[in-house]
Amino acid sequence: MSFPSIDAARLIGRIRELGEIGRDAEGRLTRLAGSDNDKAGRNRLVAWIEAAGLDVAVDQIGNIFGIWRSEENSGEAPIMLGSHIDTVINAGIYDGCYGVLAALEVIETLKDRGVTPARPIVVAAFTNEEGVRFAPDMLGSLVYAGGLPLDAALATIGTDGSSLGEELERIGYAGNIEPGFLKPHAYVELHIEQGPVLQREGFSIGAVENLQGISWQRVTIDGVANHAGTTPMAMRSDAGLAAARVGLFLREHIARSNAPSVATIGTMRFEPDAINVIPSRAAFTVDLRDPDEDRLQALEAALADFLVRIGAEEGVTISVERLARFQPVAFDQGIVAAVEASAKARGLKSRRMTSGAGHDAQMIARIAPTAMIFVPSRDGISHNPREHTEPDDLVAGANVLLDVVERMVSGR
Amino acid sequence: MSFPSIDAARLIGRIRELGEIGRDAEGRLTRLAGSDNDKAGRNRLVAWIEAAGLDVAVDQIGNIFGIWRSEENSGEAPIMLGSHIDTVINAGIYDGCYGVLAALEVIETLKDRGVTPARPIVVAAFTNEEGVRFAPDMLGSLVYAGGLPLDAALATIGTDGSSLGEELERIGYAGNIEPGFLKPHAYVELHIEQGPVLQREGFSIGAVENLQGISWQRVTIDGVANHAGTTPMAMRSDAGLAAARVGLFLREHIARSNAPSVATIGTMRFEPDAINVIPSRAAFTVDLRDPDEDRLQALEAALADFLVRIGAEEGVTISVERLARFQPVAFDQGIVAAVEASAKARGLKSRRMTSGAGHDAQMIARIAPTAMIFVPSRDGISHNPREHTEPDDLVAGANVLLDVVERMVSGR
Repeated sequence: MSFPSIDAARLIGRIRELGEIGRDAEGRLTRLAGSDNDKAGRNRLVAWIEAAGLDVAVDQIGNIFGIWRSEENSGEAPIMLGSHIDTVINAGIYDGCYGVLAALEVIETLKDRGVTPARPIVVAAFTNEEGVRFAPDMLGSLVYAGGLPLDAALATIGTDGSSLGEELERIGYAGNIEPGFLKPHAYVELHIEQGPVLQREGFSIGAVENLQGISWQRVTIDGVANHAGTTPMAMRSDAGLAAARVGLFLREHIARSNAPSVATIGTMRFEPDAINVIPSRAAFTVDLRDPDEDRLQALEAALADFLVRIGAEEGVTISVERLARFQPVAFDQGIVAAVEASAKARGLKSRRMTSGAGHDAQMIARIAPTAMIFVPSRDGISHNPREHTEPDDLVAGANVLLDVVERMVSGR
Repeated sequence: MSFPSIDAARLIGRIRELGEIGRDAEGRLTRLAGSDNDKAGRNRLVAWIEAAGLDVAVDQIGNIFGIWRSEENSGEAPIMLGSHIDTVINAGIYDGCYGVLAALEVIETLKDRGVTPARPIVVAAFTNEEGVRFAPDMLGSLVYAGGLPLDAALATIGTDGSSLGEELERIGYAGNIEPGFLKPHAYVELHIEQGPVLQREGFSIGAVENLQGISWQRVTIDGVANHAGTTPMAMRSDAGLAAARVGLFLREHIARSNAPSVATIGTMRFEPDAINVIPSRAAFTVDLRDPDEDRLQALEAALADFLVRIGAEEGVTISVERLARFQPVAFDQGIVAAVEASAKARGLKSRRMTSGAGHDAQMIARIAPTAMIFVPSRDGISHNPREHTEPDDLVAGANVLLDVVERMVSGR
């Protein structure tokens, strides 16, 4: 038998077109939330949504929605599909954008085929999923799910000192609709794996049944600035060396614990940051993740104990600020089963798996049955220009999403 | 018997007045070479030199000279005294400025006493001694001594992307006199110790007989940017963790070697510098110093070997750029003896010592007999707002300089 399919050329063409928006002189792709590049990407997406004949809605935190509804189904809770289109610095073209554009593609395909869905279908693009410029990440979907007050979210100050609310106003995406205005009947997010598992094990579809917990902290270590040439090594309080021990401790601790935990120190600042001055301050972020809440808490506790220890051993003072904390999330088994059923019917190898990354789906899971679909990432590389997924895999994932949605809206 | 003395109130008043020039809103003192704050400090110094009735000269690298000469002695090689008035970021008020203002004070004292020196006496303030904005440090005196071509020095690009030559033009201190235009008969630099030795051992005068060697390098480590949540710890090439190992290695290596070597990583940059991205690049500076050239070379070799090792162990590529390299310098024994004799005559406890910091004196030593005089630094703290020297020590050091100069110009 033959299966309906999305328009592969249209989907892949849009992913590549959006991926050209926001490149600098060196060709680096960067669309940080609320930036001019973000505005350009949003404008392109809204134009596609309008061209598809959908209603465009923007809420007060800047989340964009393309709504397909009819007089008959407008009273029903909608099926929501989506992800985000903001990026990290020097990003690839698939992270987030694939899920948003595939959702739009699924809706257009159903429209083109004359399907009359029993429920509205909505494509959503959530604000500041990456969290590079504004913390926490997944901010737009968090606010939409009621997990963070709108006012607090709009007042968030970015790494460049700007406020998210002012930036959304500036780029014309501070909407007037209240976040959460649509309560989904279900939410499904299609995304690249951003990890090596599917490719390494030869699967083309991941039926994502849960998502690991995430802990973000900012650690600030204060030592004593002093002359690099005249201060004996034994008489120093070097904030930089104390910071160096933290990352190495986390790596060794996880290796010893044999857990799937991951720990990353992605940002680092020295003060005064001069060649011939011992650093008086080192400020850095710590990203800890584990699929198990108890293990994640144990890892956080081990870090806290170690910071106390180096405070004494290095003669430094240490302060810690929590930037974000999300518990592991379990997704809806019914939707996960529908993903597996579609893959099986289409002859696509699939496996159940845990998401290592944070996604908007973990926020929407608070207000609606939710699951995710993963497709392979070459070499597991993401947040990098070398991020890549084969066109066949992109199409296969979008078609599985099409099946899952069609089953939901046909009430089967 | 009683000894002539400099004007204590005038000297200390000027040090404090100059120390108020270049403070930001938080009260942090910063006069980086070629900056607007540097210009303001230079203007203040030049006004004092003119008020003292000296000839002002500015050479092509921006070094400032105040020249006291007469028709009788203008044919003789001058005695040069000085240091620098540029500062690090968030600096103290004594580093460099004390030596320049005490030199001016010595000249004014001799003038006021009607002394007729057998040689001209010159106060010098050298450009960019700190090297915070432009590398290498001690650049102005290095060019003056013929150790770096003028064109190359003027073309130096600063941490903010500016060029030293353009900045000197901008602030009005790109002079037209050729560096080295005055070949000193002798050069003496008075400076705070910037280390803990004199205070800890109860000496008020250091007769500095040599200066340790300095090696500055920039190390760039390239790993692979990847997603912080989905990349297992064992599959990472984390440039930040590789960088962390370098500083800790240097500290352990020096502790094992039992040498007086010091090693400092004062600057650090991560790329892309995002919370949820494994660092693809860590770039940092390494400052190595030792009074013995062989030991300094051995330390450089140990670092080079370790970088090769972590390149393999961490799966990263490493490149090294040499920023500056100066061998240890031996000063003039005759001047050192004169410093000791003056201290002894005045009943001041003195000891011979090695300078741990780099100073303009090590450059001028290439073209003239040179030595330095140190006074105590409280707790050895320098390059820090808490840098402090007791007024009595400031006056004692200036009076020893006065004696040494008077002996030289009287031909005794």
